[in-house]
Amino acid sequence: MSEPTVPVLIAGQWRPSHSVGTFQAENPSLGTPLPDLYPISSRAEVIEALEAGSEAAEALRTTPGTAIADFLETFAEGIEDRCDALVELAQMETGLPQSPRLRDVELPRTTDQLRQAAQAARNGSWRRSIRDETRKIYSILAPLGGPVVVMGPNNFPFAFNSVAGGDFAAAIAAHNPVIAKGNPGHPGTTRLLTEIAYDSVQAVALHPSAIQLLYRVPRNVGLELVSHPLVGATGFTGSRQAGLQLKAAADQAGKPIYLEMSSVNPVVLLNGALSERGEAIAEEFFSSCTLGAGQFCTSPGIVIVPDTAEGQHFVDESSLRFTNAEPGVLLGHDGLDALVGRVATLVQYGAKVLCGGEPAPGPAYRFANTLLCVSGDDFLKHPHELQTEVFGPVALLILAQDTTQIVVIIKHLEGNLTGTIYSDTAGKDDEIYAMIEPHLRQRVGRLLNDKMPTGVAVSPAMNHGGPYPATGHPGFTAVGIPTSIQRFTALHSYDNVRPDRLPVALRP
Amino acid sequence: MSEPTVPVLIAGQWRPSHSVGTFQAENPSLGTPLPDLYPISSRAEVIEALEAGSEAAEALRTTPGTAIADFLETFAEGIEDRCDALVELAQMETGLPQSPRLRDVELPRTTDQLRQAAQAARNGSWRRSIRDETRKIYSILAPLGGPVVVMGPNNFPFAFNSVAGGDFAAAIAAHNPVIAKGNPGHPGTTRLLTEIAYDSVQAVALHPSAIQLLYRVPRNVGLELVSHPLVGATGFTGSRQAGLQLKAAADQAGKPIYLEMSSVNPVVLLNGALSERGEAIAEEFFSSCTLGAGQFCTSPGIVIVPDTAEGQHFVDESSLRFTNAEPGVLLGHDGLDALVGRVATLVQYGAKVLCGGEPAPGPAYRFANTLLCVSGDDFLKHPHELQTEVFGPVALLILAQDTTQIVVIIKHLEGNLTGTIYSDTAGKDDEIYAMIEPHLRQRVGRLLNDKMPTGVAVSPAMNHGGPYPATGHPGFTAVGIPTSIQRFTALHSYDNVRPDRLPVALRP
Repeated sequence: MSEPTVPVLIAGQWRPSHSVGTFQAENPSLGTPLPDLYPISSRAEVIEALEAGSEAAEALRTTPGTAIADFLETFAEGIEDRCDALVELAQMETGLPQSPRLRDVELPRTTDQLRQAAQAARNGSWRRSIRDETRKIYSILAPLGGPVVVMGPNNFPFAFNSVAGGDFAAAIAAHNPVIAKGNPGHPGTTRLLTEIAYDSVQAVALHPSAIQLLYRVPRNVGLELVSHPLVGATGFTGSRQAGLQLKAAADQAGKPIYLEMSSVNPVVLLNGALSERGEAIAEEFFSSCTLGAGQFCTSPGIVIVPDTAEGQHFVDESSLRFTNAEPGVLLGHDGLDALVGRVATLVQYGAKVLCGGEPAPGPAYRFANTLLCVSGDDFLKHPHELQTEVFGPVALLILAQDTTQIVVIIKHLEGNLTGTIYSDTAGKDDEIYAMIEPHLRQRVGRLLNDKMPTGVAVSPAMNHGGPYPATGHPGFTAVGIPTSIQRFTALHSYDNVRPDRLPVALRP
Repeated sequence: MSEPTVPVLIAGQWRPSHSVGTFQAENPSLGTPLPDLYPISSRAEVIEALEAGSEAAEALRTTPGTAIADFLETFAEGIEDRCDALVELAQMETGLPQSPRLRDVELPRTTDQLRQAAQAARNGSWRRSIRDETRKIYSILAPLGGPVVVMGPNNFPFAFNSVAGGDFAAAIAAHNPVIAKGNPGHPGTTRLLTEIAYDSVQAVALHPSAIQLLYRVPRNVGLELVSHPLVGATGFTGSRQAGLQLKAAADQAGKPIYLEMSSVNPVVLLNGALSERGEAIAEEFFSSCTLGAGQFCTSPGIVIVPDTAEGQHFVDESSLRFTNAEPGVLLGHDGLDALVGRVATLVQYGAKVLCGGEPAPGPAYRFANTLLCVSGDDFLKHPHELQTEVFGPVALLILAQDTTQIVVIIKHLEGNLTGTIYSDTAGKDDEIYAMIEPHLRQRVGRLLNDKMPTGVAVSPAMNHGGPYPATGHPGFTAVGIPTSIQRFTALHSYDNVRPDRLPVALRP
């Protein structure tokens, strides 16, 4: 009776799902559902994937790093070969512009990341081998012994995709199989990427369960998945609410889970910088905050501005830009609903709308570019609520009385992915910089100067991470190879083990 | 009215505690309480320590690594200067032999570890600096921004002491202040170590709250301590029950906690090895299992023996040795009570007592050297219960039918610190080794060949860690410098930050 759904990939087979429900993606530019029916997988199907993944984990442990690298490179080439189809599909499902965003920025970033991961798999840079010849003790980072569950976010259909993005690349580079739980916002893109990935798995003869794909699972099954005895670890990028539920389940079972959850990315503008180049900073801020309709985990959501003439001028210049620009298309109607609710939260706790503040006329899902404003005193009355992350082209400006108040505000900030300070180039702001930097530094993963935080370079020195609740642990990054690979490894020590029994990477 | 208690060290002051109760240590060799009254600190006192520690964290962040190193080395010298007093006190509180154990093994290990940490603090080897000059992005490991709580175990009054042991050394080396929560089993030793440590803090003019000492806290206050917003992280070594309670509290607050909880350290004896050198292995096993009255986290608690003539001979030889040796003194009466209960659990689930099995006559707290035995079939009926850790001179021998059953048994093992395989030197066991190693490898932190696991060398390649529930995360080690230091760090990235504002360790 039920209509056929798109197949899942389990244990090396594209096959009909034993689904407990279905869902459809939508075209956010048109506000209409897309035709394909995707399955919501049953618990039995998830357990099957875990068992197959567990077998693959055993096999991949001894798969040569060169084979892993070949897979990642073949996959990157395959993505390039299917570039047009991927970009079209992703644009339809996410509303993100084909060019430059999807075709010229995100897709090359994705293949670059896969190739960097391939290089790490080939040269073993992620393994951190240590040889203590005197004591005959050797150590190495090793795969986890179980499949890694990757749950990707809605905002990067390629670069953070559960089957092609940073977590995927890092998990596979460390010889872990991946069970991808696609983001329901772009299931077609995820399916096509999985087809390309699975063709590459076959081309280089990796274990057939090295990658598996589910599109969606019921909430309680998701909690069981991340805490199951057979799972190696989980990489999750998404909302704080979902992330904390998964974290609680995984923590209780003693299963590693790496979460990239939420961040308001505070930006502190010092008066000298505003006096020197206030309009240029307003332009940078506007561009950064509205890029991708503000749907970046590193979008500047809170800007601390001195309550001075220069600060006021910055506010005016920013408002002008936010008001005059056409808002971008949002990823889906859920995001639009959340935006409306969260802006209302900010207003409820004392923020005033300077511009925007409501949805833009349809049919596309859009929300007007929005600036809100609050005094430092009022912010400090409700610092928790006023740090509500608003995932869209929205920022809260905090007008601070003086340096002391800036420090107090920073001390009330939660853990964030990034923190930014703009200061003048003549040294007038240096003293204030030195006063605030120590407080901002320990609350963020990446500290920036004179540059908006939106861009996250795939650099070995990148930290796309930060203190809780931006992530679950301040010591790990989700971007930057080989460091990001470390998340999906176990430390293995060998004590007095005979040389010919050591893993290849540890032999003399 | 109340008698004076031993002072606590808070915010640079040795002062009377605002205690909510008192406790006394005991002399386990005599079975009698020791005279000093130690305070159980109040919540208010704990919060005060956190606030002082938080200030110290701010200061230590910019303290030069050389000053941290000077402190650690001065402390190590101070320990050597007070060696006699320390050894006497520790012997009285723990019943461990003065020589060779405390004086010749554990104390030198402790000072060696402090000096290795000093070297890491001086040369910055723990920082893992990465410089991406092209993109002007730099990264470094940094202190956590809050004090590290160290809760040490009862079984190593020096080497794992909350104020001198591995967690302490690692936390301080990464410029974190420490709030030591002493183990109630040896509060006098901890107090004396803290006196020496605090003299060293003053000698090199570290921040006065760089180290603080509490002897004990109520259970709920302990849970608040590890989850408090001001805390950086926690290092805990102790029982699984206490560890899991602390873990739940810290996890919920998003605070890192590193736990070393429990381990039965499975040893697999292959038939060729027993045929070749069965009696020698029985001797090694006996020595390892009764060392320190078996109160080692790496004591061999489960031995998988082939059910063959050679296996039976090993069982007989081991029983002989266990029976004929005088049992050592246990650390305290709590440990003795737990031993009685846990041996009863093993018997309840099908294990048979081969020798020992009950407390030895007093006044000292002792438990007879004990071997229990179960068939592979019976083990597999209650694999969870029969992995109950028995902290004492006790091991469970599992008589396995064949290689297939060995593999099945190993697949039922929980995460452990160590796993050991003994095989013959002529290659007869090699095939079986290859079959079982992959399964054992992924369940342990350190894999050994032909050597009992008790010794934990302070080697950079050591892993004193392992999969849950041996610890809370398979990627970290509690022993081995500089790797162990990584636990108490946050990853800090600097993006476009002006060169003169980078931390010293990152400047060109």
